[in-house]
Amino acid sequence: MSLQRVLPFTKSLLEQAVANGDRVIDATAGNGHDTFFLAQLTGPTGKVFAFDIQQEAIQATKSRVEAFHHVQLIHDSHAKISDYVVSPISAAVFNLGYLPKGDHSIITKSQSTITAMEQCLELLQPNGLLLVVIYSGHEGGSEERDAVMEYVRTLPQTDFDVLQYGFINQRHSPPFLVAVEKKRKKVL
Amino acid sequence: MSLQRVLPFTKSLLEQAVANGDRVIDATAGNGHDTFFLAQLTGPTGKVFAFDIQQEAIQATKSRVEAFHHVQLIHDSHAKISDYVVSPISAAVFNLGYLPKGDHSIITKSQSTITAMEQCLELLQPNGLLLVVIYSGHEGGSEERDAVMEYVRTLPQTDFDVLQYGFINQRHSPPFLVAVEKKRKKVL
Repeated sequence: MSLQRVLPFTKSLLEQAVANGDRVIDATAGNGHDTFFLAQLTGPTGKVFAFDIQQEAIQATKSRVEAFHHVQLIHDSHAKISDYVVSPISAAVFNLGYLPKGDHSIITKSQSTITAMEQCLELLQPNGLLLVVIYSGHEGGSEERDAVMEYVRTLPQTDFDVLQYGFINQRHSPPFLVAVEKKRKKVL
Repeated sequence: MSLQRVLPFTKSLLEQAVANGDRVIDATAGNGHDTFFLAQLTGPTGKVFAFDIQQEAIQATKSRVEAFHHVQLIHDSHAKISDYVVSPISAAVFNLGYLPKGDHSIITKSQSTITAMEQCLELLQPNGLLLVVIYSGHEGGSEERDAVMEYVRTLPQTDFDVLQYGFINQRHSPPFLVAVEKKRKKVL
């Protein structure tokens, strides 16, 4: 056997969480890999909202998903998710850090990341998943990692389960995953 | 979907790592639940070595696995694993802490735990798994947790992958898993 790496594990959770017809968010469209994957999972009866603040990322994602008509590309900060998405979603995914192959000085930052995560948690339907892949090797990365970890550790266990999945004996701060599942409210 | 809890996830890794005919170690037999599970996975052509320093645990495990003839119960410290096991194993499992329903003052301790883990890593065949379920809520538990984590974090990434899996927003220090996979040596 081989222990599943972080990105395949993240994808396998998305496969379990997202069904045909679902609405989902890619909070960091980047080069569009996750947007494409999500678009396949939701199918044309679902919808993918993909955010990025960089025109370059929106362009790259656009070319990758041009075959799909159920992807809405939004060239704006993910801190404004709730301006664009109002109905429940089954999943949201974040890849923190910089745009691969892009300008490494443009990075996600704790405050807007956490604002965006809060909005996603609000939008999640019961048993929905918020997945955050945390990269911290770049400058400013460890501050963001610490802020995000502090935030998720304090999410009330009555409402959320917060799982950490990652390899801990590797140099160069490899990415790790934080997965937040919204619990189904008990009817009293 | 629902995120898999720590114990079911641990079991699913064992199911993937252990095949019929394999040799495996239960380093903390306790009430024999893992020993029983492992005995099913290896089948009668395999072998399970189950260690516990407490007579009470050996007794409890004995009654649980009496249907199996390929389980060797060893009433000794797991720090002496290499006195009893000399051929390669495909998996070893530890549940740290005290014996459930037993004397809560008798607990696993960092030094013998790490000695035992070292011996298991030595015995593991390539792609074999060492699984350590860490409980730290009891007195002395956090010291052991910290020592084990320090040890596994420094395992060389050329030889091992070390995965941490656990829920991080819960009170009462719930158990979490550390899974160590031995890498296949590259032939130069």
